Amino acid sequence: MHAITIDEPGGPEALVWAEVPDPVPGEGEVLIEVAASAVNRADLLQRQGFYNPPPGASPYPGLECSGRIGALGPGVSGWAVGDEVCALLAGGGYAEKVVVPAGQVLPVPKGVGLVQAAALPEVVCTVWSNVFMISHLRPGETLLVHGGSSGIGTMAIQLAKAVGAKVAVTAGTRQKLDRCAELGADILVNYREQDFVEELAKATDGAGADVILDNMGAKYLDRNVRTLAVNGRLAIIGLQGGVKGELNLAALLNKRAAISATSLRARPLAEKTAIVAAVREHVWPLLDGGHVRPVVDREIPMSDAAAAHRVVEESGHVGKVLLVTP
Amino acid sequence: MHAITIDEPGGPEALVWAEVPDPVPGEGEVLIEVAASAVNRADLLQRQGFYNPPPGASPYPGLECSGRIGALGPGVSGWAVGDEVCALLAGGGYAEKVVVPAGQVLPVPKGVGLVQAAALPEVVCTVWSNVFMISHLRPGETLLVHGGSSGIGTMAIQLAKAVGAKVAVTAGTRQKLDRCAELGADILVNYREQDFVEELAKATDGAGADVILDNMGAKYLDRNVRTLAVNGRLAIIGLQGGVKGELNLAALLNKRAAISATSLRARPLAEKTAIVAAVREHVWPLLDGGHVRPVVDREIPMSDAAAAHRVVEESGHVGKVLLVTP
Repeated sequence: MHAITIDEPGGPEALVWAEVPDPVPGEGEVLIEVAASAVNRADLLQRQGFYNPPPGASPYPGLECSGRIGALGPGVSGWAVGDEVCALLAGGGYAEKVVVPAGQVLPVPKGVGLVQAAALPEVVCTVWSNVFMISHLRPGETLLVHGGSSGIGTMAIQLAKAVGAKVAVTAGTRQKLDRCAELGADILVNYREQDFVEELAKATDGAGADVILDNMGAKYLDRNVRTLAVNGRLAIIGLQGGVKGELNLAALLNKRAAISATSLRARPLAEKTAIVAAVREHVWPLLDGGHVRPVVDREIPMSDAAAAHRVVEESGHVGKVLLVTP
Repeated sequence: MHAITIDEPGGPEALVWAEVPDPVPGEGEVLIEVAASAVNRADLLQRQGFYNPPPGASPYPGLECSGRIGALGPGVSGWAVGDEVCALLAGGGYAEKVVVPAGQVLPVPKGVGLVQAAALPEVVCTVWSNVFMISHLRPGETLLVHGGSSGIGTMAIQLAKAVGAKVAVTAGTRQKLDRCAELGADILVNYREQDFVEELAKATDGAGADVILDNMGAKYLDRNVRTLAVNGRLAIIGLQGGVKGELNLAALLNKRAAISATSLRARPLAEKTAIVAAVREHVWPLLDGGHVRPVVDREIPMSDAAAAHRVVEESGHVGKVLLVTP
């Protein structure tokens, strides 16, 4: 098969479409003939040499894919060769074939195309595990999503609206904010021109955000804590704004607030399986019913993954950038 | 009645036993004829003018008491005049009488004396809400308790052991650590001579603490995060070591860990009632059965509350210092 290989970490040109050995499904694994993968920011870090695959994972990038099941390893039940699926991967999605534990596989939802389904696993599992399983967003509460037009952001808006929450987003352009509004976002903050602490206070009569989904880390830490409501929960899933920040514990304590920080990729199989099962139970019916949809910015041939990485690095996209196999 | 009044914030001498009007129970409240109250660190802050009672609370200090019900306000059911009880208060425990919402009242457990029961409400509710309701300590996990010999600490050790957890404690003297060991603590760290990060790593084969109950805040923040296990939870309930500290978000994220910070006093009635109900369901059977006991350092006449505050400020005590009415 072919896969995107990284011989030397570096810029987008480090991504080389090359012939490599086919993977073989082990005990409890399925082999997927990949229709599409999608770009995640972690892939950019991996390309640069900053985010090595966890032990046992494929050396090729790609944290999610869609495709057809091509073979079953020993001990797999519930799936058959030819099934149209998408899957959460520990790596290896940028390839024509990938093997994955059966517990990380999901059916392609009704009304979602086979290629488009590659946009779902990582964002749905990340949003569901953080906003709902860890932070317990409830109907009537306010969710603040930083980077509302990202793949994660566009899914977070839709899922939060589907459960009856109010949604605030930050983004850097009017056009991105308009797209967030189309998806249901109630409070729009242009972070280049406005202070989200002030805007959230205004829009919530001073109450603040009950849950914040944050990808900026240190840069937003103090402002996020200031924006939290009483009993608020800050869920950090990215550190694009730095790693170390000053935390005002008195502010946190006075609000009885909590901060969590997680990454999906490093979770052990049992935790991923539990998240995928929860997503299938709670989110898949919303996708099957057309209430929530994958947001795809564009599709790019997988062999030109470098172009896709440039698109994501330039941050002009809305939703997911997909990589489609030949 | 008499109560400890604070005309001018200051040292222990600011606490004056004076004649004041009796309180009157309102809708849903009971009046307790106080047998004893207990000293909490928040009382010391209130005496110094740093911790004002929440709106509507008694101006007198005292966050818990035991005694007999002397009168019922309108709409109270489940309690009768003469019942021996203890209660979680928003203030006013340093007095001969206090009124409290019925949802914050608990019966005196079997085998616990009426005076000793004053040692229970604040520590049991604080430990249960933080270690179990928020941080979900599970059997087989490791709990690290800072200040293991404090009122909070001695209760945290007992409750964690009762559910089958392993317990590590820090304290400043051999004698205090011995008392913690008698209560069941497995891992003893003298913070004056040892580094708790190292000691916990040694004692857990590098895994760290699944839950940390912390009263130090900023001073221990970085070391607490370093000591957390994967999926670890840091529950901050005091800021004796300062308010602002640097948080390493990458360390938190790599461990998929969480930090919460709470205070019991500021919680609204509904939250206190929920905690008291959970405590009655889960902790009271352990007290009734003698598996968990209040740890009382000494009893001091309430009129001499100043002496009790000096004892707590000198930090030589183990467990709770009680204030007994005449």
